[in-house]
Amino acid sequence: RRARPVREVLFFPSRPCCIEALLAEAAEPGAPARPCPCPLPSADTALSRLVRRLLSARRSLDLCLFSFSCPQLARVVQLLHRRGVRVRLVTDSQYMGLHGSQIGRLRHAGIQVRHDQHSGYMHHKFAIVDRRMLITGSLNWTTQAIQSNRENVLVVEDAEYVKAFQDEFERMWEEYNPANYSF
Amino acid sequence: RRARPVREVLFFPSRPCCIEALLAEAAEPGAPARPCPCPLPSADTALSRLVRRLLSARRSLDLCLFSFSCPQLARVVQLLHRRGVRVRLVTDSQYMGLHGSQIGRLRHAGIQVRHDQHSGYMHHKFAIVDRRMLITGSLNWTTQAIQSNRENVLVVEDAEYVKAFQDEFERMWEEYNPANYSF
Repeated sequence: RRARPVREVLFFPSRPCCIEALLAEAAEPGAPARPCPCPLPSADTALSRLVRRLLSARRSLDLCLFSFSCPQLARVVQLLHRRGVRVRLVTDSQYMGLHGSQIGRLRHAGIQVRHDQHSGYMHHKFAIVDRRMLITGSLNWTTQAIQSNRENVLVVEDAEYVKAFQDEFERMWEEYNPANYSF
Repeated sequence: RRARPVREVLFFPSRPCCIEALLAEAAEPGAPARPCPCPLPSADTALSRLVRRLLSARRSLDLCLFSFSCPQLARVVQLLHRRGVRVRLVTDSQYMGLHGSQIGRLRHAGIQVRHDQHSGYMHHKFAIVDRRMLITGSLNWTTQAIQSNRENVLVVEDAEYVKAFQDEFERMWEEYNPANYSF
């Protein structure tokens, strides 16, 4: 039986929280929880809710992120990649090399990354989980934004909205194919 | 009879376009159209669609914008204000004074503006029309973003999502009340 479609709004800033228990459960479901030595609480926060939504991916995760420097979210993406989820990431050419960017690390981990070639910004901040759930809003994936800014993220499981964003993702994925680079 | 709820996704960049005909029709419905001398086409673009949604406001327009420097959208907001729509604007304290910002002009026109007092950014980019239609996404209201960036804007007429954002707006409106400033 199909569950009710997810409809959620997350507002930031989020309290800092430990996501080790969520990562451990996703890596090894049912394994006994090992306590994390970090001082942060494993609380229910906007960040932990975002992480849970991402970790629900089983087949694909399409990411379209202007700025991605949050190490916690990079670990989530790497875990999904290791678990066999097909991860694709579109990002902005001017921000991907900035200090603290996680893009290089994700590429080293074997994740496919493409970027724009424009003078304008690739300013989207959305994720699509299993071509089914859209996660979109004002939030760049930076620790500063998560912990300090007023931000919103919508979680939408609605075929019409998801399709519009999936189509935009596929357009960019083709347009930013390195085979099409012009120098 | 109630129309079907609006569900729309706008992607940017938008072709530059002239919005004079839209503004004239909103200022004086039914008046004969006067041709605009500008060289831009009055085309159906992401920008013109955004403008149409905003101009549909009859009672209230709540704006929550990190950055607002687009003169065309400032004219839309001023027109609504003159037409008696209650406009409230929340913005970011660090961006509102930047070169090209429209915030001063809107304040001079008599529009109520409040801003955060944080070191973090007030990074939302949303509008709520008549407490009924939510317009939200990655788009800052700058000409650069509209004409050059890859951006998204969702238009959502759904009570659950609208209420979440309206509540967030009211929280900020109170929190940023100048009567509560601490120096």
